[in-house]
Amino acid sequence: MTTLTLDGLDATDHATFVTALGDIFEHSPWVAEAAVAARPFGSLAALHEAMVAAVRAAPADRQRALLVAHPDLAGKAARAGSLTASSTAEQASAGLDRLSEEELAAFHRLNDAYREKFGIPFIVCVRRHTKGSILRLFERRLANDAAAEHATALDEVFRIAALRLDQRVQAADRLPLAGRLSTHVLDTHGGSPAKDIPVALYELGPGDARRLVVETRTNRDGRTDQPLIGGRPVPIGTYELVFEVGAYFAKRGVPLADPPFLDVVPIRFAVAEAEGHYHVPLLVTPWSFSTYRGS
Amino acid sequence: MTTLTLDGLDATDHATFVTALGDIFEHSPWVAEAAVAARPFGSLAALHEAMVAAVRAAPADRQRALLVAHPDLAGKAARAGSLTASSTAEQASAGLDRLSEEELAAFHRLNDAYREKFGIPFIVCVRRHTKGSILRLFERRLANDAAAEHATALDEVFRIAALRLDQRVQAADRLPLAGRLSTHVLDTHGGSPAKDIPVALYELGPGDARRLVVETRTNRDGRTDQPLIGGRPVPIGTYELVFEVGAYFAKRGVPLADPPFLDVVPIRFAVAEAEGHYHVPLLVTPWSFSTYRGS
Amino acid sequence: MTTLTLDGLDATDHATFVTALGDIFEHSPWVAEAAVAARPFGSLAALHEAMVAAVRAAPADRQRALLVAHPDLAGKAARAGSLTASSTAEQASAGLDRLSEEELAAFHRLNDAYREKFGIPFIVCVRRHTKGSILRLFERRLANDAAAEHATALDEVFRIAALRLDQRVQAADRLPLAGRLSTHVLDTHGGSPAKDIPVALYELGPGDARRLVVETRTNRDGRTDQPLIGGRPVPIGTYELVFEVGAYFAKRGVPLADPPFLDVVPIRFAVAEAEGHYHVPLLVTPWSFSTYRGS
Amino acid sequence: MTTLTLDGLDATDHATFVTALGDIFEHSPWVAEAAVAARPFGSLAALHEAMVAAVRAAPADRQRALLVAHPDLAGKAARAGSLTASSTAEQASAGLDRLSEEELAAFHRLNDAYREKFGIPFIVCVRRHTKGSILRLFERRLANDAAAEHATALDEVFRIAALRLDQRVQAADRLPLAGRLSTHVLDTHGGSPAKDIPVALYELGPGDARRLVVETRTNRDGRTDQPLIGGRPVPIGTYELVFEVGAYFAKRGVPLADPPFLDVVPIRFAVAEAEGHYHVPLLVTPWSFSTYRGS
Repeated sequence: MTTLTLDGLDATDHATFVTALGDIFEHSPWVAEAAVAARPFGSLAALHEAMVAAVRAAPADRQRALLVAHPDLAGKAARAGSLTASSTAEQASAGLDRLSEEELAAFHRLNDAYREKFGIPFIVCVRRHTKGSILRLFERRLANDAAAEHATALDEVFRIAALRLDQRVQAADRLPLAGRLSTHVLDTHGGSPAKDIPVALYELGPGDARRLVVETRTNRDGRTDQPLIGGRPVPIGTYELVFEVGAYFAKRGVPLADPPFLDVVPIRFAVAEAEGHYHVPLLVTPWSFSTYRGS
Repeated sequence: MTTLTLDGLDATDHATFVTALGDIFEHSPWVAEAAVAARPFGSLAALHEAMVAAVRAAPADRQRALLVAHPDLAGKAARAGSLTASSTAEQASAGLDRLSEEELAAFHRLNDAYREKFGIPFIVCVRRHTKGSILRLFERRLANDAAAEHATALDEVFRIAALRLDQRVQAADRLPLAGRLSTHVLDTHGGSPAKDIPVALYELGPGDARRLVVETRTNRDGRTDQPLIGGRPVPIGTYELVFEVGAYFAKRGVPLADPPFLDVVPIRFAVAEAEGHYHVPLLVTPWSFSTYRGS
Repeated sequence: MTTLTLDGLDATDHATFVTALGDIFEHSPWVAEAAVAARPFGSLAALHEAMVAAVRAAPADRQRALLVAHPDLAGKAARAGSLTASSTAEQASAGLDRLSEEELAAFHRLNDAYREKFGIPFIVCVRRHTKGSILRLFERRLANDAAAEHATALDEVFRIAALRLDQRVQAADRLPLAGRLSTHVLDTHGGSPAKDIPVALYELGPGDARRLVVETRTNRDGRTDQPLIGGRPVPIGTYELVFEVGAYFAKRGVPLADPPFLDVVPIRFAVAEAEGHYHVPLLVTPWSFSTYRGS
Repeated sequence: MTTLTLDGLDATDHATFVTALGDIFEHSPWVAEAAVAARPFGSLAALHEAMVAAVRAAPADRQRALLVAHPDLAGKAARAGSLTASSTAEQASAGLDRLSEEELAAFHRLNDAYREKFGIPFIVCVRRHTKGSILRLFERRLANDAAAEHATALDEVFRIAALRLDQRVQAADRLPLAGRLSTHVLDTHGGSPAKDIPVALYELGPGDARRLVVETRTNRDGRTDQPLIGGRPVPIGTYELVFEVGAYFAKRGVPLADPPFLDVVPIRFAVAEAEGHYHVPLLVTPWSFSTYRGS
């Protein structure tokens, strides 16, 4: 059963259902077990809701066991290669599988401090974050009290489960998890979309770190054929969009200074809502530019 | 005679004049010698003009000797500490005294190729340039023919002399050598100048290099108390102005995203006219910004 | 046969076809007659092309008779109510049925001068124009020579025919006649679309004249539910978009000056390509705004 | 004594002083009388302060008599030509000497209602206002209670006196009464100030009224040689700055649409602080523009 469909899950036998979704909640097939009676779900949203309800209805020690079943971020299990497949891919999405020595030390320090204070691992829905925002969140959440962290950790577990379901199961509905980051280049010197402009998106931090997310070019509408990030959460964090406008204006035959006043234009901004729509356009002449959060 | 005044130079004896200005043209006191008869000058412009006229009137081999008397950029003389005081300061102004191995190799390769082709050292008025623009110019001028390079080298020598005169001699007039780079931050969210914004100016390149030129803060008019660069040429090259606007809006009590959409705003631009006025303002809200070459 | 479909026209008998399309070319059913043999057309574009080909293939005197069959703009036939239904609607679209005395005099003067010079009425595809642009065009075309005007008049006749076909006949394809004028209001103070902003579009001129084209409000995306002008040519001419932003910011609880610095924001611009896409957005804070031709 | 100087007033005899400044407060030479003992003043500010102190120290009925001594705005005295010279000029500055019938009726209705409610005329420092802002203020102040209006009326009397002193008496200091309205046009298509652009400033309202305040052109810095309004309060009200940019870009040889997308650019804004500095620049290309309240 490589491709799961919601209809198939609604129709299959009890055991197959539990096998198929047993790892949606980390090392906790009992959640799928508890949800199976609520079939048929009819929608991915209803399936997710049923699983969340099963966790919420579980006694406190079982909830705690669920939390404890999660691995540390960039922890021993990760280095030992003993993570679940889902956890491995998730941690890699934020670059936690390729940390510098310094970053690794920071994660270990924070993991230890967190476990020491709360008795559970630090849990966060990594696909909604960048390395930098995880570290920042880590520091903040360390300052919470135990009850708040228990609740927050469960919420993050539910987000992780939602993203896993959304990736795994084909259904008519999608869970509302996808943000979008897009751009648009307008040549306000010529009064038209700026086509064929090289655009690169970098994720910044922590420190001076800089990771290329995507490289593309504007099309004849001045947009990119695909959103820079789409169909998934836009990881919370700081970004730089880099537009190469000098060559564009030169090719258009516009008289330019030498070197041109504007050549490579970086736009730095941050994403705070992983499910938000971020449209970050560039309005540009050889002598001016502007940008804004559009919609 | 530590402080030279034009009036003093116009009135002093012949020998003192030549001693005082003997090094305005590199290792070539004959230029001051030739100009002395034209006294009194009355203005710095007239003094410079007289020295230029003396060079132009000299026979070709003497002009060539003047060119040959110049040191290589980042060359052996520089490493040996045997440059004139003026040349030492000039080369330091563009960072030629602290090149990486790779940059040093580039300079040596270009110096050798240039001397090989033209029989004179590569001469450029370094105070009008950055490391990056010197290297770019070097490559370009290597493609010229000998006559063009002889003329260009002389023009650069006259610029070097002008800047040396302008620094050395007090007079009522100033030589028209000063460019200006300034900024202004307007908070178009609140409708007022943005005060107390940290502003840093970096010189970029070659490669990923990044050198802090000046760090300051905006005053109550949203400007800086001093121009970022003023009273001297603005070295040709690429720059980044970096404005810290996130903390400013936070302090103003403006509701912001977390992290704020705009926090550190870099503006990258290039200077092509060392004697130009570059006003590069920032109009900013928590969700948008724009910039332009103003005046 | 109130609703014409292309399939019906392709299948019907000869006489019905000619009756149905006999007035696509003014008082000239012979054009439909000449095109009928080319059936089936399969597309509106092919039908239009066949009619155009029929006119182009006709002898010069027949072409001239077609031109002469057109009424004057705002002429006697219009006042007498003896225009074809199509002409009546077309002339009304540009306000030619409600001219001031002064404008009427201008049209009569130009009509007479044109007929005097060229022996044909002044023909223009009125739906692509405003009163002001018609008068401007009139003056310009009066300066042409007869051959150029014969050709231009035919081109305008083909445009008129195309718009009539496009309105009259249902088909899978549409003729490429529709321009679009749209707007978008972004609140760059709050970082979101500005919803519920009253927007009015006025057509300006000639002189101080000002005619309301459409009044609407922005929706939650900061756009209007319908384009301001869409599905038809955007008449060439000058416009003013008027946005009421003061009340919007007041309602948002933003501290404003009294009276607010920006309250009613007019944006004046001109349309030159009737089939173009004009996106004219407003980026606005209580203290700043910008606009541009977008796409 | 046609030109008054502060030094002269400080030195002259008692009677001359009172004669010279007897009309600074409307029909109330007793204010000058009461202030004379405080000489020498040394500054205009001290003189104004002394006169204000004299009024504040006067018994309530005398203060009331001062208020009652003021004429109605656009009232009988104005029509009869029996205003003081100062009042005549002041009322003319806001156009109260050339009201339409309708406006006149509005003023009479408001004058009567105000006198009926408060027993004093409606007093406002007219030079700080436009017709529109006076009518708006009138309606608002009618809603106040008597004590508030007594205090407000006195404050306005002190402002009137300050402007009269500032115009009448030469001194080393000036009273802080002057606002400023200025503009600046930047051609962000060409990267330079836009020179020789016709600029007109209109005062708007009430209703559709539109009064030309000043017409000028930008100089080579893109600014106007004089501020649009300077050296006096900027009357509170709504304005339109109108820039003729189409001809400018045509003359620059920039390819433009026909008609150009931007030709005459109006910028509408309001002034709320008569003593404020309003810098309202235009950044413009043939296809975009922006403006903001600068400083």
